[in-house]
Amino acid sequence: QIDHFGFDENRMFQQRYLVADQHWKKDNGPILFYTGNEGDITWFCNNTGFMWDVAEELNAMLVFAEHRYYGESLPFGNESFSDSKHLNYLTSEQALADFAVLVDYLKTTIAGAHHSPVIAIGGSYGGMLAAWFRMKYPHVVVGALAASAPIWQFDDLVPCGAFFSIVTNDFKRSGKGCSESIRNSWNAINHLSSTDAGLQWLSSTFHLCSPLKNLQDAAVLKNWLSETWVNLAMVNYPYKTDFLQPLPAWPIQEVCKFLKDPSLSDKLLLQNVFQAVNLYYNYTGEASCLDVSETATKNLGQTGWYYQACTEMVMPLCTDGVHDMFEPEKWDFDAFSEECYRLWGVRPRPFWILSMYGGKNISSHSNIIFSNGDLDPWSAGGVTQNITNSLVAIVIPDGAHHLDLRSRNPLDPKSVQQARALEIRHMKQWIEEARHSH
Amino acid sequence: QIDHFGFDENRMFQQRYLVADQHWKKDNGPILFYTGNEGDITWFCNNTGFMWDVAEELNAMLVFAEHRYYGESLPFGNESFSDSKHLNYLTSEQALADFAVLVDYLKTTIAGAHHSPVIAIGGSYGGMLAAWFRMKYPHVVVGALAASAPIWQFDDLVPCGAFFSIVTNDFKRSGKGCSESIRNSWNAINHLSSTDAGLQWLSSTFHLCSPLKNLQDAAVLKNWLSETWVNLAMVNYPYKTDFLQPLPAWPIQEVCKFLKDPSLSDKLLLQNVFQAVNLYYNYTGEASCLDVSETATKNLGQTGWYYQACTEMVMPLCTDGVHDMFEPEKWDFDAFSEECYRLWGVRPRPFWILSMYGGKNISSHSNIIFSNGDLDPWSAGGVTQNITNSLVAIVIPDGAHHLDLRSRNPLDPKSVQQARALEIRHMKQWIEEARHSH
Repeated sequence: QIDHFGFDENRMFQQRYLVADQHWKKDNGPILFYTGNEGDITWFCNNTGFMWDVAEELNAMLVFAEHRYYGESLPFGNESFSDSKHLNYLTSEQALADFAVLVDYLKTTIAGAHHSPVIAIGGSYGGMLAAWFRMKYPHVVVGALAASAPIWQFDDLVPCGAFFSIVTNDFKRSGKGCSESIRNSWNAINHLSSTDAGLQWLSSTFHLCSPLKNLQDAAVLKNWLSETWVNLAMVNYPYKTDFLQPLPAWPIQEVCKFLKDPSLSDKLLLQNVFQAVNLYYNYTGEASCLDVSETATKNLGQTGWYYQACTEMVMPLCTDGVHDMFEPEKWDFDAFSEECYRLWGVRPRPFWILSMYGGKNISSHSNIIFSNGDLDPWSAGGVTQNITNSLVAIVIPDGAHHLDLRSRNPLDPKSVQQARALEIRHMKQWIEEARHSH
Repeated sequence: QIDHFGFDENRMFQQRYLVADQHWKKDNGPILFYTGNEGDITWFCNNTGFMWDVAEELNAMLVFAEHRYYGESLPFGNESFSDSKHLNYLTSEQALADFAVLVDYLKTTIAGAHHSPVIAIGGSYGGMLAAWFRMKYPHVVVGALAASAPIWQFDDLVPCGAFFSIVTNDFKRSGKGCSESIRNSWNAINHLSSTDAGLQWLSSTFHLCSPLKNLQDAAVLKNWLSETWVNLAMVNYPYKTDFLQPLPAWPIQEVCKFLKDPSLSDKLLLQNVFQAVNLYYNYTGEASCLDVSETATKNLGQTGWYYQACTEMVMPLCTDGVHDMFEPEKWDFDAFSEECYRLWGVRPRPFWILSMYGGKNISSHSNIIFSNGDLDPWSAGGVTQNITNSLVAIVIPDGAHHLDLRSRNPLDPKSVQQARALEIRHMKQWIEEARHSH
């Protein structure tokens, strides 16, 4: 159903979902249901090894459900992003309703699944969806594992600067001089971008695919660098990975090897910064130039996500240059709203998510695990302390963005192994409870 | 917000709500929040004396919130019902979102209300909304009193015939020959309506405002009679009332005084049936003729409700003429769907309410009282047995449709007095729990 909440638009669309049932115990064995987030579901499927690792132990079926407007689940095909009319059905509420209807469908059509307890699992925005799915549809899922889900990164529930100060700490602890080098790099760029020669030097030093032409382009460069540092903080995994980009183990440590001396002259400092970002964008050595319009895998749906950020997923972020290594920038809702209006003709509603999902007032819910890695900037907006006996927080000291959802790895720190063990224990308990309820 | 679930329609509308705070304890005293249903909110306000009766005891503020598309809360003014485009935002989900946003607004704008525990109270469809409000927005309301709320009158959760067999029992126990007289009346009408003279006789005997012209009109007459019996079952209160119509105490008993002999000839039987319905429609003696297009107070929004029934509020009802006193009529979803399409261009989605609100699988929720009167046909689809310690069913043996929500009355049966006492006890407990949670 394109619109679950209105009856004037009665058309349907095809939602993609992936099923793996080789370990499923047919007689109402559990279903682990990945609540797909802002990207191609096959990519999440391939980056959520935890579910594959536990399927046998839990005799579970795996289902990965694609989020509408991402991957191949496009309500209006190529027209889906054409205007705000076609984008109108891209909301978390519609996505959760898709999931609820899909679970109902699977349970009635798959023989032996009628009483299967279903557990929602998701990471990042998908983690929020997993938590919200349990909150709003507790009759559909017996529990939820919400990994790295910043459900409190809204309004003023958490300080807007916490996010970037975690990024900064990741760099600070990964090498002497590292965060200071980055902090100093902004002024270096500002100096150079004030002249045409400087802009040209920057373009060639950073091997940019399209040369910088003016101050606006320089601002784009800075944004791109900021996002790069943020992304590195998210994927600072203890072993070689290929999530947002192909990267070595502990990539921030590798990056920081180039950023030991913050006191260098502008040009030397920025040459080092180039080395650092080149490691992120060109670890395989295949890139002939760097493109400032991209910071991560194409499997993520940037357009759709930006629309969501411009409507209900309004997450205030800010920097002050003191508690973090970034150029100071206040959270400016009005400017953000204007930008959204310019782009899509829509206005964000920053308080709606709180009215809808309860903000910090969620203690009456049950059976949700909130896991967060200490290294992950998104943990700033996450639930990192137990709320009740059955709203449990798991903090993973050496973990980046939903490390616990990744496949087991010999290089896993003990913390994530313990986290996964605890998660499995809770899931088994939910399954057990569900079994006793009929 | 006209559309809470999409951002393309960004207009607002004015929602009416009534506040009574003379008994409110300013320092976070509780708020009793009536979740308005399909009608003018002033009318519900005047027919929910229970809230007024307990306001002082609970130091509570009363809020009565009007449901969108009813009373004066029309999203598009006079255009609201013009077509399915304008009706698109008439759903229970939008109404609940209105309530959530309104409560948030009241708690932030009324001094001293910031931590006020809010209890949802509603009857009939408003009772469903109260229960669903607690289920979906437990961060907004600490509990709900759902009076005569047929949350299970959907799909095949309850037998479709139970409703009419309760109506029948009400008549059966209110007078010898009563339900049999009504059962026999259908054939009597069928015989008479097969000739023009018969149609004329029916028109004049029933004092109809517009004379019957054909068999179709006769079917309308029969529907109108059926609805009249149903309405009488709903408002079979132990004292004089004016809810759907001005009526004496125990109106079914009064009606049955005319219907003692089911073996009479067609005409004599129907003359008695006229006397019976005339008591319902003309107790005040002011009606100069009877109008088969109306069965109840104009305070109810018939058009809006019929649209809701044609979309998500699909409640299967059926009769067999054996376990009930009505003409046999199967539940025919396809015919219903066609009729909805003809009227509004919409198709009902009979399973959506189950996916959304959980059907019978609601045990993970808490703090809801489901009260039902034994005399009330809607109790067929209600929760009449405890589900958990905090999902409590209260059955009122001598109660009609949400009798417990009415003002205290010297003629109240003991059962409803006990029900109200228990309801108050639970509400006090919820308030107490809420107080301890900060």
